Amino acid sequence: MDTEYLISPNPKDPHLTRRVEAVDHEGKPIETSVTVERPLTLFLNGQEIVTMMTIGDYPEYLALGYLLNQNMIHDDDHITAIDYDDDVQCIVVRTAMKTTFEEKVKKKTLTSGCAQGTVFGDVMEKFDTISLPKGQIIKSSWLASLVKKINTTPSLYLEAGAIHGCVLAQEDRPLLYMEDVGRHNAVDKIAGYMHHHEMTGEDKIFYTTGRLTSEMVIKTVQMGIPILVSRSGSTAWGVELAKQVGLTLIGRAKGRRFIALAGQERIVNDIEPEERVAE
Amino acid sequence: MDTEYLISPNPKDPHLTRRVEAVDHEGKPIETSVTVERPLTLFLNGQEIVTMMTIGDYPEYLALGYLLNQNMIHDDDHITAIDYDDDVQCIVVRTAMKTTFEEKVKKKTLTSGCAQGTVFGDVMEKFDTISLPKGQIIKSSWLASLVKKINTTPSLYLEAGAIHGCVLAQEDRPLLYMEDVGRHNAVDKIAGYMHHHEMTGEDKIFYTTGRLTSEMVIKTVQMGIPILVSRSGSTAWGVELAKQVGLTLIGRAKGRRFIALAGQERIVNDIEPEERVAE
Repeated sequence: MDTEYLISPNPKDPHLTRRVEAVDHEGKPIETSVTVERPLTLFLNGQEIVTMMTIGDYPEYLALGYLLNQNMIHDDDHITAIDYDDDVQCIVVRTAMKTTFEEKVKKKTLTSGCAQGTVFGDVMEKFDTISLPKGQIIKSSWLASLVKKINTTPSLYLEAGAIHGCVLAQEDRPLLYMEDVGRHNAVDKIAGYMHHHEMTGEDKIFYTTGRLTSEMVIKTVQMGIPILVSRSGSTAWGVELAKQVGLTLIGRAKGRRFIALAGQERIVNDIEPEERVAE
Repeated sequence: MDTEYLISPNPKDPHLTRRVEAVDHEGKPIETSVTVERPLTLFLNGQEIVTMMTIGDYPEYLALGYLLNQNMIHDDDHITAIDYDDDVQCIVVRTAMKTTFEEKVKKKTLTSGCAQGTVFGDVMEKFDTISLPKGQIIKSSWLASLVKKINTTPSLYLEAGAIHGCVLAQEDRPLLYMEDVGRHNAVDKIAGYMHHHEMTGEDKIFYTTGRLTSEMVIKTVQMGIPILVSRSGSTAWGVELAKQVGLTLIGRAKGRRFIALAGQERIVNDIEPEERVAE
């Protein structure tokens, strides 16, 4: 099963978890694993963008994915280098030309001091222009198989908990399984990998342990992926945006059960009710 | 039981959840509840600070708590007004004097375009000066009773899921139970309430459904609360910071079980092992 993955979690990496001494509910000393988190400050050319809290694996994919998903760089911006400095926990993404984003930040911050609003505005602008491929399907048998594979893959979640996971899949095959303490870092690492390896989203399925919020829907759509699946539930805006853009939104995927909240036309039910009962 | 609370969730409020039509894993049409999320743009005097995604209850407490927990305003800043405008989803917090934060943002943004780094730096500066009261205890019987009360309180989580919850408690009595889609909005709403009602943290317990990250530890300490409890696990930095500042950090609190990761000296074990077995 492990060979299906291009990237899967490495729970035995000593940089990602730490053993700590604790006491249990009976007062007995025990040892337990906890996930690490580290600050990583991201620069785009000369511009400081943000300090992220991350477990620290794949900083290059994280940086690239963050900038792409925030619309701070675009597919046609030529990336000349990504320099990661472990000592000072900084990463610099360099582009051949200054991006339009840096100018926008400067203009915005002079008047209001915070670029969040602008960034969000830009994201929605792009969102409105995207149309997802309609022909792609997801069989309920793929979904059941995928959820089972993901849940039994050795992970930081199983080792130490306190972490989110995201998986990029094709049919019932998980390709990339990224984890991180930061809610959307796992998504951004997948986006960065996809961009770097020129992998497209139209025949993929995106799975997340986290909730289906508007942000999660927006990022999936930006990656060009037509199907988003979660173990958790959704917000109302998540559902609305998914309907608007034609994204298939599947919540509460557990075992063979799920609830499809939008884009139901892509779902092919190939598990017979009797099979469910038998299980 | 409900009468114990000063504020508890209102899952029947029609503004907070929406019924949506969906299909289940057998292709049958069903109705399900989803949580709402709305943007709320926060201004401090004339300065735009951030746009938050929130369920939208208690915007005044959220705004106040956010500014306090980010160290953008301080206990001695005199708040003259909090103006909430439902139509344009904006909230303005006004102080008698310009706060030092606004100057800092302006200075910082001129050079680097993003205040995140500075804000974080300021938070840690304050963190190092805080000392938590040592005398406060938590009995394991309180904890078991508290967890049971919280889990059986009607909530948006039980109604629609996809939400985080935080509870401020005293001994085994839950006082404030706030929920929100944004990870830290629930915390900030509690901080805002405490500040507005001049409630202090030294004899309180803070419970969260979310993970015990460094940010969660920092906010609890800033509220002056010596005990932090979660249903989930912790990150390594969360544990380190808790030890550094003398915070009692309790993870994986379920039923009568828990793991104490720091500050074990405040825990009084008053449940006999036989009682656990009997249960």
